[in-house]
Amino acid sequence: MILGVPFKEFALDLVLKPIGFFESCFKDKFAIPRQPGLAPHAWGKINFESFVQPELSLDGLQGYSHLWLVFAFHQNSNQRYHAKVHPPRLEGKTMGALATRSPHRPNNIGLSLVKIYKVLSDSVIVMGADLLDGTPIYDVKPYLPAIESIPDARDGWSGQAPDPKLAVEFSETTRILVDTCSQEIEYPFLKDLIVEVLSRDPRPQAYKATDYKEIHIFRLFKWDVHFSVDDEQKKILVRNLVRYVK
Amino acid sequence: MILGVPFKEFALDLVLKPIGFFESCFKDKFAIPRQPGLAPHAWGKINFESFVQPELSLDGLQGYSHLWLVFAFHQNSNQRYHAKVHPPRLEGKTMGALATRSPHRPNNIGLSLVKIYKVLSDSVIVMGADLLDGTPIYDVKPYLPAIESIPDARDGWSGQAPDPKLAVEFSETTRILVDTCSQEIEYPFLKDLIVEVLSRDPRPQAYKATDYKEIHIFRLFKWDVHFSVDDEQKKILVRNLVRYVK
Repeated sequence: MILGVPFKEFALDLVLKPIGFFESCFKDKFAIPRQPGLAPHAWGKINFESFVQPELSLDGLQGYSHLWLVFAFHQNSNQRYHAKVHPPRLEGKTMGALATRSPHRPNNIGLSLVKIYKVLSDSVIVMGADLLDGTPIYDVKPYLPAIESIPDARDGWSGQAPDPKLAVEFSETTRILVDTCSQEIEYPFLKDLIVEVLSRDPRPQAYKATDYKEIHIFRLFKWDVHFSVDDEQKKILVRNLVRYVK
Repeated sequence: MILGVPFKEFALDLVLKPIGFFESCFKDKFAIPRQPGLAPHAWGKINFESFVQPELSLDGLQGYSHLWLVFAFHQNSNQRYHAKVHPPRLEGKTMGALATRSPHRPNNIGLSLVKIYKVLSDSVIVMGADLLDGTPIYDVKPYLPAIESIPDARDGWSGQAPDPKLAVEFSETTRILVDTCSQEIEYPFLKDLIVEVLSRDPRPQAYKATDYKEIHIFRLFKWDVHFSVDDEQKKILVRNLVRYVK
């Protein structure tokens, strides 16, 4: 059998040009869900570059409910490839990088499944993405349930890893604030989104053991969300929403 | 909201290096199924480059049953991007390129879901791929059914498009030949594979109307498979298997 001999006319290094950029409710890496769909109310918008002629090339997409995004992890701080990674949920154990969806991979490329909310003339609004604001997008592909939905597929280590959820409570002030903010951006799901993000305790592993009284901050849309964890680390309290000023 | 402003430190053009090459039963573009999974017995093997350290980076993959392949359509003859494409099953109607899985896209990148058959030390044998022999692979990612299996997702035009299947028959000679060939490559599914490939009538659209008496040939593993279509175009006859000589 012919073994992986590439064809001469094909340049092996593949150069991808962004076809658009992602506008996201997540403005910081901190608190972005570790997989798409974990925060179904996450808001995002793919703004297409004019060279792909979105007014033509998106025709037919409105018939689909879900979309694949092919993107780059453009803010990876560690650019070196390691064959073994430490998935956050495995508490120190390592796993082969290609047996995970870790952003630290031989090629800096990500794949996320999102829900289509609205197809516009030069953009698509989507829900449930785990992408940072400004992420370059290299391809979008409609999701084909007949081929790509395999409910009984075997889910290796990630299916067994614990996935605890914490209770999320709002202080009296933030309960009112979140409604006002919601109205300002005309996004009725802001409160749901904060619950979805915080219930997975977004604090880095190293912090979880010690700093239960500290206040943590992550940015969502235009606001810094302040939160803390209770003494028993079972409950998260939303303490404030503060308008972000550059 | 900040609109798609890329971060300065990130080079917008993403350069991907092949992490491996695909060894496939499909040696020609002709007769490759138009989607993965349509020929579940298609044989393939990802041979990894040593720089990804497959002996480490594949650790944990054996727990998964399905794998995403990110690859390049390296033998696309038409390299120019068109915002509208003609999907074969739509018989002349056009569709926006980004609303299809067409290989003719702004970036030459493909995504296929395959079944993991065996994880070896520096390669993975997979089933059901729609990839040409020699295809460069840029990433593999385990399939996560909890997130990526959405049985009730809406399947736009592709869900409604007709998908006729033809009956496939073997001549008496080829019935014996296919068993001998099967034994030679120690692949008991060769006959199933030929049926899967031919039942979808792989002839290009333009041929279907006229040439029902012609003999067509496609290459599978080491053999050229000769076939023809009956007068009523409802049945495909396998006429010969001829060893391919370079």
